[in-house]
Amino acid sequence: MEDCTFVIFGATGNLSRIKLIPALYHLDAAGRLTDGLRIVGFGRREWDDAAWRAQVGEWLAERETQPEVLERFLKRLYFFQGDLADEAALPALQNLLQNGDGFAPNMVFYMAISPAQFGKVSRQLGHCGLATEDGGWRRLVIEKPFGYDLESAESLNHSLNRDFRESQIFRIDHYLGKGTVQNLLVFRFANLMLEPLWNRNYIDHVQITHSESLGTGGRAGYYDGAGALRDMIQSHLLQVLTLVAMEPPASMDAESLRDEKVKVLRSIRPIPQSAVNAHAVRAQYTAGTVNGEKAAGYLDEPGVPADSVTETYAAMKLFIDNWRWRNVPFFLRTGKRMAKGNSMVAIRFKHPPQQLFRETQIQRLEPNWILMNLQPNECIRMEMQVKQTGLEMRTETTRLDASYCGINPNQLDAYEALLLDVIEGDHSHFLRYDEVSWAWKVVDPVLKEWAVERDYITGYSAGSWGPKEAGRLFPRQDQYWRNTLDDSDDERG
Amino acid sequence: MEDCTFVIFGATGNLSRIKLIPALYHLDAAGRLTDGLRIVGFGRREWDDAAWRAQVGEWLAERETQPEVLERFLKRLYFFQGDLADEAALPALQNLLQNGDGFAPNMVFYMAISPAQFGKVSRQLGHCGLATEDGGWRRLVIEKPFGYDLESAESLNHSLNRDFRESQIFRIDHYLGKGTVQNLLVFRFANLMLEPLWNRNYIDHVQITHSESLGTGGRAGYYDGAGALRDMIQSHLLQVLTLVAMEPPASMDAESLRDEKVKVLRSIRPIPQSAVNAHAVRAQYTAGTVNGEKAAGYLDEPGVPADSVTETYAAMKLFIDNWRWRNVPFFLRTGKRMAKGNSMVAIRFKHPPQQLFRETQIQRLEPNWILMNLQPNECIRMEMQVKQTGLEMRTETTRLDASYCGINPNQLDAYEALLLDVIEGDHSHFLRYDEVSWAWKVVDPVLKEWAVERDYITGYSAGSWGPKEAGRLFPRQDQYWRNTLDDSDDERG
Repeated sequence: MEDCTFVIFGATGNLSRIKLIPALYHLDAAGRLTDGLRIVGFGRREWDDAAWRAQVGEWLAERETQPEVLERFLKRLYFFQGDLADEAALPALQNLLQNGDGFAPNMVFYMAISPAQFGKVSRQLGHCGLATEDGGWRRLVIEKPFGYDLESAESLNHSLNRDFRESQIFRIDHYLGKGTVQNLLVFRFANLMLEPLWNRNYIDHVQITHSESLGTGGRAGYYDGAGALRDMIQSHLLQVLTLVAMEPPASMDAESLRDEKVKVLRSIRPIPQSAVNAHAVRAQYTAGTVNGEKAAGYLDEPGVPADSVTETYAAMKLFIDNWRWRNVPFFLRTGKRMAKGNSMVAIRFKHPPQQLFRETQIQRLEPNWILMNLQPNECIRMEMQVKQTGLEMRTETTRLDASYCGINPNQLDAYEALLLDVIEGDHSHFLRYDEVSWAWKVVDPVLKEWAVERDYITGYSAGSWGPKEAGRLFPRQDQYWRNTLDDSDDERG
Repeated sequence: MEDCTFVIFGATGNLSRIKLIPALYHLDAAGRLTDGLRIVGFGRREWDDAAWRAQVGEWLAERETQPEVLERFLKRLYFFQGDLADEAALPALQNLLQNGDGFAPNMVFYMAISPAQFGKVSRQLGHCGLATEDGGWRRLVIEKPFGYDLESAESLNHSLNRDFRESQIFRIDHYLGKGTVQNLLVFRFANLMLEPLWNRNYIDHVQITHSESLGTGGRAGYYDGAGALRDMIQSHLLQVLTLVAMEPPASMDAESLRDEKVKVLRSIRPIPQSAVNAHAVRAQYTAGTVNGEKAAGYLDEPGVPADSVTETYAAMKLFIDNWRWRNVPFFLRTGKRMAKGNSMVAIRFKHPPQQLFRETQIQRLEPNWILMNLQPNECIRMEMQVKQTGLEMRTETTRLDASYCGINPNQLDAYEALLLDVIEGDHSHFLRYDEVSWAWKVVDPVLKEWAVERDYITGYSAGSWGPKEAGRLFPRQDQYWRNTLDDSDDERG
């Protein structure tokens, strides 16, 4: 691993405080940072290095730290006082980094700033020569949203590409995290038992659910301009879908992996504008009770316009028109203020032939399920049929849970592994632009229809599992939503 | 269900005391016996009904009983004093049953007597007219051994068939029990996930192990004339093999099920006399420690000839030459005085392609296993690969255990369900003669070779998992015996 200079734009903000600085500290504690790695905080405050170090020391004081690691870590920190609105700021930064003493020529520029500034800052980095890889590499890290729709995503990308090549850009998706992605890859491709079953011959449908019990958390202003479809489905849930559905890549390298993910997105059957309502449901939460506490309806949240039709819940049905998945529906669903916060992939298998048991007391054989819980705990469960004890021939569902379920919460913070990947130049777990673009193409017809059609929005009580209308996406009566690993959360009729 | 008269030959013996009478009592307690069902004990003792009832009362006093059920049950009991060596005994019995008051004309004759007498008693029943189904059905129940080799089995069957038709004969195999068979059928055919995997494309090999920690238990005289191959493999383990390997039957009825089992036995590749040693291993236990107690070697057991070459351990490798199983070895193994008493089916899958992980720290992907424990507890386990937590890409094995494992021991006594089946005339869980005959054909070449070749027998310490020589049956280095669900019992090198 090479030395590098890690520049954080927006160093004094929340992302820096809650995620980036703690992640870098933990990497230092784990011995994963080289001696020459320095962290440069860029911000408007009138601070010097000492003040910045004192601030970071305070942030980290809330966590478990080791004194000798903390001392080493704080020495890595430098502060550059500047305002991105000032055109002289970045040339001055460039002067410090390239002419100052001891700053490694490899540089990471982490954009912990408003997405509206991504394009402008990228251009300024270009103008002052910091995007050019002479004498060291230069990497730009941005967080979603990567645009607001297909057009604005194209436009942002165009603007970044004027100064940075695709290989220099790291689009971070912390929702999945490297660990979860790797778990999914290992589960699918390190187990011979699964691959033969993983196709339209045996799988009835797939559900991908991300539920949140929280509301907009004081970000109603931002959220009302985005909505659940943009905020979760276009980005995170389509990523999960690609990992569940993709063909085995030829290798674990970034391009092989991302090529396969893009193939899935490109194979999704486009939703015709006229059929949006058959493929998507949107809703807003109304007043209710979440975790025993009263919660206001979305329209009563501060900052939300009284006539808002922004969805806090979205569900979609997608088909992947390739050899593996043709006619297997994938249901994607997310919402705020739902009963519990959880993320789960549920794979339902088809019914086995009943013929062998037709003269027994068994009325109907239940299908098998594979449940992969992603958050808050990782767990793999299979649901199978066994005979009930006793003299009669009756079946019941038994669960086979992986032995680590419930014991082993997702311990690694997503940022730790991802920041290390940026420093090491591994793009595997970052989005390539064509992924972003094809994901926008998938949701675009729905966004367009929902923008003009203000009637088709329904409500669901805060603390529920979403609107009844979501059930209409299922083509058959024997299909129902699986919410969490807890049976009592099921919605079976 | 019809009334019937249940006659037990050998009513005062161990089988009657330990199994038959308690099973009939439990069926009575469960309300499964009609009011008109009577149980006639046939024995040499100078008893009357009252003495017999008193004796049964004593036997049942060791168990939990309900006073009102016990009273009802004892009233069902009648005793017929007679000696099977006396040719007048069975005509007298016939006179009682057909001219006495209140004996239902449907009759079960349960042979709880020495196998050597099966043929003779069957003939006597025929002579006195009790085999003829006039006015009621007549059923004959026999326990294994069904012969001593192919020839003697043919001869026994010939003798039974002179008076009873195949449909009247119930060959009981209490080892599997109805519950275990039904569990295997449900597991295989009520779960869509398994059938696509259940063939030579995905399965590397199958192991079927029945280990006993007990020795010959005072029956050394009988046992030395039989040996492990006859006692367990020809009968019970080949039955398990047929259930694991068979095609889905068209229905659960007796003939459909037994047709499929026979197809498997007929498809087993015959072992050439010259290749017996490549396909079978035999051994005798030597002195050792079992469950912390010293145990004598087999040759030192009372009643065993000093030059005995009877095997107390046998292992076989078989191939089923059909479309589903060609070239998948099935390893059958049993022994006395082994480390633990257990019965398990272990299905090993092939290795997945390593290609995706070739540039990671993963040295070798472990294959998947499905373990089906039959005794003492029923349990289904899958072993799968998951990613280890942490930043590195390493895998580990996780177990998915059915939720009932460890909670739900095999509670139903095998005899209860089987006796009910006899009374109800359901042959599904009894052996048809062609099953017996084809099973003898499978082991016959080995029996013949072992009878003449007295050198190829090795030893294993009492309390071990058998002789090292058994490992030579595996064609590849990555194959090893799975002993129980407890890892510490594994023999992996």
